[in-house]
Amino acid sequence: MNPITTQDLHQALTWRYATKVFDASKKIDPTKLETLLESLRLSPSSFGLQPWKFFLIENAETRQQLRAQSWNQPQVTDASHLVVLCAKESVSTEDIDEWIKCLAITQGTPIDQLAPLQGMIQQFTGSMSAADMQNWNTRQVYLALGQLMTSAALLGIDTCPLEGISATAYDQILGLETSGYRTRVACALGYRSDQDKYASAPKARFPLDRVVTRL
Amino acid sequence: MNPITTQDLHQALTWRYATKVFDASKKIDPTKLETLLESLRLSPSSFGLQPWKFFLIENAETRQQLRAQSWNQPQVTDASHLVVLCAKESVSTEDIDEWIKCLAITQGTPIDQLAPLQGMIQQFTGSMSAADMQNWNTRQVYLALGQLMTSAALLGIDTCPLEGISATAYDQILGLETSGYRTRVACALGYRSDQDKYASAPKARFPLDRVVTRL
Repeated sequence: MNPITTQDLHQALTWRYATKVFDASKKIDPTKLETLLESLRLSPSSFGLQPWKFFLIENAETRQQLRAQSWNQPQVTDASHLVVLCAKESVSTEDIDEWIKCLAITQGTPIDQLAPLQGMIQQFTGSMSAADMQNWNTRQVYLALGQLMTSAALLGIDTCPLEGISATAYDQILGLETSGYRTRVACALGYRSDQDKYASAPKARFPLDRVVTRL
Repeated sequence: MNPITTQDLHQALTWRYATKVFDASKKIDPTKLETLLESLRLSPSSFGLQPWKFFLIENAETRQQLRAQSWNQPQVTDASHLVVLCAKESVSTEDIDEWIKCLAITQGTPIDQLAPLQGMIQQFTGSMSAADMQNWNTRQVYLALGQLMTSAALLGIDTCPLEGISATAYDQILGLETSGYRTRVACALGYRSDQDKYASAPKARFPLDRVVTRL
């Protein structure tokens, strides 16, 4: 591990802002793009279940369709790439089995030794209502969004998280209706335009002692 | 901005794991700790509303009390620091006004010019049910958790996200009952012990083409 300095980290987090106008001519290079997809894949999740699917959308026509379902926000079409973050609706026994199998293979652990973990996850998820489970999975997706946005900033790539989208229409366009996954949020990735007046606006946040209590 | 390399980013994200055993003798130095608190403060949130409060807990007695409400997980007491992430239960007109005022002051904008934004936020939040609003705020807190954990990894600091906690008991211990905030998740921060067998386990994740679809 080669840690970065606190100054570099702070600078990247301050540099980041919700980009409103992207430079449509600037594309993210393939190595950086793959690293950002890895940041999603490597994101933490409860029990490691990874209750998500991510769409990386370059296709111009699809992005036009999505833009029409996003209050016509230009970021959807103009950013280098668009990621749509989807959450699993529920966590089934099969999902847990798939994860336990992945864990066993990756770590070279006999699957029997993972039975207690498997049982614990089943008990935990089995006690949740359908609505609680949806919310739980959606929270994991937001954690992944946080990892993606922070990772992008550190690579000097701009982002704009997009909640103002019709998730139902996105589901239709992406063919998710019977998939068990649902669109939760999107994120445009690319490079800010020098026409974006928000790029130079001072970052507005409550003071630290308003949001942090020390005990 | 001084971007880091894709290799350094990928290495940090791979190095990170949910630390089970912390080295209780190792403390995070003050500069790094303040930068991590800044990573929470600077986190993105819907409309910039920052519907959250974070507790940074060093006090040993409080942490013992919290550990008893966390399935006795040793990370709660043994890590250098514990952060408890709380979400606002609802977003009130006063909350929106406070944010608009902060924005106006920081950016030197006459408050009247922000009236359209203020109206839009009010309309958006006004149409949400109480449950939807709680979930919405909680998702923002998970985004902040993502930014915190990724930031920590880049500084070479270990973390363990903690969902297995009694949020209601945490609320009592932290005196949150009438505050309008509720405990949603916690995160231990510090340094892994060389006794933690999970530190050397290969990272288990589904393959990229299982979680990412390219269109």
